[in-house]
Amino acid sequence: MTKTVQLNPVGWMSQLSQLEVNQLATSTSAELYKVFRNCCLAVLNSGIEQDDSEALFETYKDFDVRLIRRERGVKIELINPPEVAFVDGKLIAGVHEHLFAVLRDMLYMSSKHRSFEQDVEETNIITHMVFDMMRHANALSNSEPANLVVCWGGHSIKKDEYKYTKEVGYQLGLRGFNICTGCGPGAMKGPMKGAAIGHAKQRIKHGRYVGISEPSIIAAEPPNAIVNELIIMPDIEKRLEAFVRASHAIVIFPGGVGTAEELLYLLGLLLQAENRDQVIPLILTGPADKADYFHAIDQFIGDTLGAEAQGMYKIVVGDAQEVASELVDAKNKVLQYRKLQGDSFNFNWRLKIPDDFQRPFEPTHETMAALNLYLDQPASQLAANLRKCFSGIVAGNVKAEGVKQIQDKGPFTISGDEGLMQHMDKLLKSFVDQGRMKLPGSTYNPCYRVDL
Amino acid sequence: MTKTVQLNPVGWMSQLSQLEVNQLATSTSAELYKVFRNCCLAVLNSGIEQDDSEALFETYKDFDVRLIRRERGVKIELINPPEVAFVDGKLIAGVHEHLFAVLRDMLYMSSKHRSFEQDVEETNIITHMVFDMMRHANALSNSEPANLVVCWGGHSIKKDEYKYTKEVGYQLGLRGFNICTGCGPGAMKGPMKGAAIGHAKQRIKHGRYVGISEPSIIAAEPPNAIVNELIIMPDIEKRLEAFVRASHAIVIFPGGVGTAEELLYLLGLLLQAENRDQVIPLILTGPADKADYFHAIDQFIGDTLGAEAQGMYKIVVGDAQEVASELVDAKNKVLQYRKLQGDSFNFNWRLKIPDDFQRPFEPTHETMAALNLYLDQPASQLAANLRKCFSGIVAGNVKAEGVKQIQDKGPFTISGDEGLMQHMDKLLKSFVDQGRMKLPGSTYNPCYRVDL
Amino acid sequence: MTKTVQLNPVGWMSQLSQLEVNQLATSTSAELYKVFRNCCLAVLNSGIEQDDSEALFETYKDFDVRLIRRERGVKIELINPPEVAFVDGKLIAGVHEHLFAVLRDMLYMSSKHRSFEQDVEETNIITHMVFDMMRHANALSNSEPANLVVCWGGHSIKKDEYKYTKEVGYQLGLRGFNICTGCGPGAMKGPMKGAAIGHAKQRIKHGRYVGISEPSIIAAEPPNAIVNELIIMPDIEKRLEAFVRASHAIVIFPGGVGTAEELLYLLGLLLQAENRDQVIPLILTGPADKADYFHAIDQFIGDTLGAEAQGMYKIVVGDAQEVASELVDAKNKVLQYRKLQGDSFNFNWRLKIPDDFQRPFEPTHETMAALNLYLDQPASQLAANLRKCFSGIVAGNVKAEGVKQIQDKGPFTISGDEGLMQHMDKLLKSFVDQGRMKLPGSTYNPCYRVDL
Amino acid sequence: MTKTVQLNPVGWMSQLSQLEVNQLATSTSAELYKVFRNCCLAVLNSGIEQDDSEALFETYKDFDVRLIRRERGVKIELINPPEVAFVDGKLIAGVHEHLFAVLRDMLYMSSKHRSFEQDVEETNIITHMVFDMMRHANALSNSEPANLVVCWGGHSIKKDEYKYTKEVGYQLGLRGFNICTGCGPGAMKGPMKGAAIGHAKQRIKHGRYVGISEPSIIAAEPPNAIVNELIIMPDIEKRLEAFVRASHAIVIFPGGVGTAEELLYLLGLLLQAENRDQVIPLILTGPADKADYFHAIDQFIGDTLGAEAQGMYKIVVGDAQEVASELVDAKNKVLQYRKLQGDSFNFNWRLKIPDDFQRPFEPTHETMAALNLYLDQPASQLAANLRKCFSGIVAGNVKAEGVKQIQDKGPFTISGDEGLMQHMDKLLKSFVDQGRMKLPGSTYNPCYRVDL
Repeated sequence: MTKTVQLNPVGWMSQLSQLEVNQLATSTSAELYKVFRNCCLAVLNSGIEQDDSEALFETYKDFDVRLIRRERGVKIELINPPEVAFVDGKLIAGVHEHLFAVLRDMLYMSSKHRSFEQDVEETNIITHMVFDMMRHANALSNSEPANLVVCWGGHSIKKDEYKYTKEVGYQLGLRGFNICTGCGPGAMKGPMKGAAIGHAKQRIKHGRYVGISEPSIIAAEPPNAIVNELIIMPDIEKRLEAFVRASHAIVIFPGGVGTAEELLYLLGLLLQAENRDQVIPLILTGPADKADYFHAIDQFIGDTLGAEAQGMYKIVVGDAQEVASELVDAKNKVLQYRKLQGDSFNFNWRLKIPDDFQRPFEPTHETMAALNLYLDQPASQLAANLRKCFSGIVAGNVKAEGVKQIQDKGPFTISGDEGLMQHMDKLLKSFVDQGRMKLPGSTYNPCYRVDL
Repeated sequence: MTKTVQLNPVGWMSQLSQLEVNQLATSTSAELYKVFRNCCLAVLNSGIEQDDSEALFETYKDFDVRLIRRERGVKIELINPPEVAFVDGKLIAGVHEHLFAVLRDMLYMSSKHRSFEQDVEETNIITHMVFDMMRHANALSNSEPANLVVCWGGHSIKKDEYKYTKEVGYQLGLRGFNICTGCGPGAMKGPMKGAAIGHAKQRIKHGRYVGISEPSIIAAEPPNAIVNELIIMPDIEKRLEAFVRASHAIVIFPGGVGTAEELLYLLGLLLQAENRDQVIPLILTGPADKADYFHAIDQFIGDTLGAEAQGMYKIVVGDAQEVASELVDAKNKVLQYRKLQGDSFNFNWRLKIPDDFQRPFEPTHETMAALNLYLDQPASQLAANLRKCFSGIVAGNVKAEGVKQIQDKGPFTISGDEGLMQHMDKLLKSFVDQGRMKLPGSTYNPCYRVDL
Repeated sequence: MTKTVQLNPVGWMSQLSQLEVNQLATSTSAELYKVFRNCCLAVLNSGIEQDDSEALFETYKDFDVRLIRRERGVKIELINPPEVAFVDGKLIAGVHEHLFAVLRDMLYMSSKHRSFEQDVEETNIITHMVFDMMRHANALSNSEPANLVVCWGGHSIKKDEYKYTKEVGYQLGLRGFNICTGCGPGAMKGPMKGAAIGHAKQRIKHGRYVGISEPSIIAAEPPNAIVNELIIMPDIEKRLEAFVRASHAIVIFPGGVGTAEELLYLLGLLLQAENRDQVIPLILTGPADKADYFHAIDQFIGDTLGAEAQGMYKIVVGDAQEVASELVDAKNKVLQYRKLQGDSFNFNWRLKIPDDFQRPFEPTHETMAALNLYLDQPASQLAANLRKCFSGIVAGNVKAEGVKQIQDKGPFTISGDEGLMQHMDKLLKSFVDQGRMKLPGSTYNPCYRVDL
Repeated sequence: MTKTVQLNPVGWMSQLSQLEVNQLATSTSAELYKVFRNCCLAVLNSGIEQDDSEALFETYKDFDVRLIRRERGVKIELINPPEVAFVDGKLIAGVHEHLFAVLRDMLYMSSKHRSFEQDVEETNIITHMVFDMMRHANALSNSEPANLVVCWGGHSIKKDEYKYTKEVGYQLGLRGFNICTGCGPGAMKGPMKGAAIGHAKQRIKHGRYVGISEPSIIAAEPPNAIVNELIIMPDIEKRLEAFVRASHAIVIFPGGVGTAEELLYLLGLLLQAENRDQVIPLILTGPADKADYFHAIDQFIGDTLGAEAQGMYKIVVGDAQEVASELVDAKNKVLQYRKLQGDSFNFNWRLKIPDDFQRPFEPTHETMAALNLYLDQPASQLAANLRKCFSGIVAGNVKAEGVKQIQDKGPFTISGDEGLMQHMDKLLKSFVDQGRMKLPGSTYNPCYRVDL
């Protein structure tokens, strides 16, 4: 029997004009609609720890979602939604909010920004879109300035690493910091959970746990239970831009290729001449016995991007309190810098993000093979290309489209400078060995082949 | 010596993207900018009782306003602003808010909606714009449903009439109604002032006193001191649409040609076949000894639009409490109707507003003379034309551009059906005799000539 | 037909223990109950402008009030309450609050503090009681520090004086000050009304309009419509103590004997050696053409208490803005003084109030005749006695018990130093001539006879 | 080196009169002061999982606390406080609140209620005191009615049991229930932690996590990190009364003698004739594999108090969701009952608590030996005596004074009806075997000897 549930709009979506409702309903392509449906399904499974989106979709084959137009606005109708999202027949309030966040970001905002798409080249239009999406998500107003810490790290991490991310989150929460992550499990959940306890102890009632996701990854990393602001950027490049522009500091926990992608993206930006004076505190941290892991990362950065890049982060091992104290100190510098530059406290407008970092990279066997991974280019440029390379591996690992390509045509080939290839191979192997590619319970078949 | 004051943005204007800031600054024509400057000046004179915009502008010839672009957004800089808006050197908070409302509505929203202007024919785009402006003004969320009463009436009214508007406002405020008016003095101020006392007695902390103005009138009717939400619609037609779509009931106090324009606009809409089932409570009311005034109006409506139109309002004389009690009863009917139709509680989407009521009417000697004021047309159509006729007289009386035309070319000529012209002449004369054309202290020279 | 209305408790009274409810119900004497009933009646007539309590009581002879005990607490039942307090059959929320304030202060607090009464001599117990009553009324927490201005002045003042009190209130409200008065009409209402507009313009949502009354005067001065915190002190002495301890500055408008009583009370305190360093800004102010009035008062103070007393206030004539600006400057000095002394920001604990100022003075023909009004006593002591003398005249003018004494035994005799008696006679005569003794519409028969 | 920290008062304690401050400072005996100091120390160790109060006190021998009198009120000065309560040198806000809750309940309220102590016999004075303490703790106002669930259970429970308490708390939190417990670790913490997640998911910002403790136990059970309302009742009897009068439903998790005491207290009350119609939902619940544990408890109740008592609770095993759903159903019955009886929604006044349940039981070797544990008494009376017996064992296990007695004179002797003694012995042994007497890490030496 078919079960249906109708949901009244909340937040921005509760005040749409008829014109907007019509556009929502008519402009959605079958393809976009399918992605939208899948994101809704992921959100309805918030809190489930699973990174196999296919399995998720398989379980709820008869699930669907419909938009219902009313004179007063738009409703979402769920058909056969997962039971787990309901309490005594009523949808959990947080999930309800998240569903309308999905609708807002994926259909409403995309319809709104469609006209810009042809001009996608232009930097300031992409940045405008990122800003506009954050604004509509009501994510740009901090009660206290400069307190949003972005935490990156793997969705599949060891128990002791997870515990450590909670500890760091707790110390950050005690100091009034809010948390922003990629919104999935593992290192994306731990800091939020810890911060929630810290906030409770400090009687901070309006702690923010911001999750920034994207359509192609959200099904593999459904929002964890703590996320109270969900934003879905159209692609990984805008998601990364949202992270760095909204953040006041960045903490990187152990992770796999996704985390490496994030680190390289950021270093690539900071290596730009225009960004040399930027104040973006960056700490790599993990449990005391993971010193080796960070040594390996640091080595790789040194070998590929050089000492200057290494100088842009600080590695703290096994000391959650120091991480938080460092960021308390750094906070004032961030504020001073923003004030001096006349920049916004909630959105880093001045940060220069070159075209090559903004334009979506579509990983295919061809684009992966064509990546310039040689050393005779500026470090910033190399970082951009390495970022794309890791991005491709993430796709091959967990994104539906990437997985399909690998199934069809075998692993991506990665080639370039011989030394670089050896560093690359070593790093990737260590990720595999440490089980950082996929959640436990599955054997990992590499989706890439390094051409040594 | 030049005095300058810089103001930080508040409300929606505090979160603009750089793209938007650039558009604000670059797309503003000299003409628009002058109007913007004049509106700012009017707002800075909030509370001043004066309807001579030229005198106002003359007094502050050296006043100017500039937009200052910062990475973090836009500031307003005032040059030689009127002292009256400052307390110990600090701008009054309410005036500060109003200035950014002017910026939002006149420059930001107009820039946003420019692209639509070519399609201005299309009904739903105009309605979308009206809605979008109300939404950005944060004016669509009532804490309690169906409690916004629009009050129309003259800016120049007698003392006893003014007192009566306060009494009605007080009775409405005691019953939890919020007030929306044209935001100037007289009957636009009294109901707000009364409601504020009523709200205070009922411990209603968030009473709404919504003023909806337009650029060409605001200088002649600066916002009164009570207005706490200011919205500036681009023209009188959109202003009228905003009134009727946002209202849950309408009260009309004694007034002159502007009030007649409003009444005819509304009756013209309600006479549309599609709007026959609309539930829009409409009460004409004034002090006990003004029965004659309403008799004259009622007679005019009967003579021109017929008995059906007369059935659309109720006349209550000298009984403020009855006015309020009527609206309490009507409120439930409004709610029921909106629910039944699936319409919004805060914006009457279903109300059909034909093209002819939405398209701006530009009063000139030619357009005024060309108005079809004969009886061989549907009552709804005649109402539309009479509305335009009165609109023209308002312009000739107090709007800068209209006044200039009259100065240059003499009075407008109004012609049409003979009987109708006689009714018209009688009504207009009574307005003149009763001093409803201009604020006291000036002799009124009619800006029109009825072709009897 | 008897009409009854039951009211659920609000505020502190909504959480009573059964023990307290029992005490409330059993400990109330018939006498106290009658006063309670009369106060309720006065509150139900909030906003009525009338100072003839007998007329008020006469109109509502069949009104009564009962306490209803429930396991969950206490309800108030009104029998035949005045219609004016109801809107569509529902009691106005503010009046509802005020009624439970009356219950709280007159029955609950008096029952609570009964045990102290035998020790009434002891200064700190009286001060504790005043504090405790303010605390239970939730009147000790200012959102912003040092912003409570006490305004004193007549209940019967001229129209231009009233307008001026509004103007001062407006200027104070614009500067964020809250207002505390004796809660009746005239100079007790004007400043609140003005401040309410000032607060609205500055978007101050939680303006405080504190009325402090006492049982024997409230029926002659029912709370005005703006009062949103009502406190009823047991007698005039505690009422005066509440005023001066809660205030951060005091403004005195024109008034009659009551106002003179207040001024002399305050000067008497400030003339105490222990209070010489107190920072209590005190301004006497009125319309420009009332310079004479203040000259007469100033003269009287100079003639009786001397130049030191004259140095304790500042007279500002016809400049509402200056009054407010003065207080803005003074505010910081008040804050500094309190900080330095470690004193509370909301209750002036350090102010020394001698026994003679705290102990209730019961005006009778005997006590009035016995007052020491000779010059061979410290100025502070003379001020105390003059205060009592004026207090007696207030009672003879408007308080039920005093009026009765005069009816029975003729006017009070006031005697003392010959010169002083002449000053006294002159001042009192001027009050009579200026109509400051009673509201207009009645002929004033003096309740005193100065023994020249 | 001595470290001192001064704390400004918060909550009720921020508004004390000088009289009250003086009483606070002068009326405190050395004995009371020592207990106060120890409670402060316990609160400063909030979140520490340890039930050995002696060890705790030993660690912080040089800790002390002082009250500082200021004209504006009272401050707390900490001398050598534990580092764990500070973040970057600033006391955690929640701990700060808790310290002033300790001051309020232990010194201020005890001073306030001292005069009643002689009349301690009188039921309604004890109940008044319990109510008054809850009221001053601001614990009587639920935003939503009837949603406070009291959870009882052991401080030393197994990991799976703890996880189950979290799950039940989560299901309760999802349904909008607030949690009240004894405020320590184990089953007192789990439900709060779970509810916090449930509240977060439902966007409930003002979840209440009420901990009710008493001076003699708080050091052995320091408040857990989630408690956001702390109340310290003077003794276990008032603590139990506070639990049952404030609760709308009660859930009992596995525990040891303390939990048995709580269950017997409640059953003893419900067996009173006057309480037969009371609606107090009571559920005993634990993980699926703990059916045996509840069977043993149920058996003991049946064997001692009979089938009627067994009918007063429901046992739910391994189904957290059913527990919560049951309580949703029961909630309406509770509300109906309270409404019908005119009783308060937040304090169960009607519940009859006989003298014998209110009067403090002081466990000594004599009083323990003298307990009437024979079957020839009403079940309600037997429950009261069994309650005392278990209360004595709790004292002998963890309360400082009880532990000392056992050290001095050996175990308490428990004697009575032979069959009853056997049931007793069996139950206590099972508690010992299951490690429910003390936290793991210590060997348990029974503080009692059952006289078989």
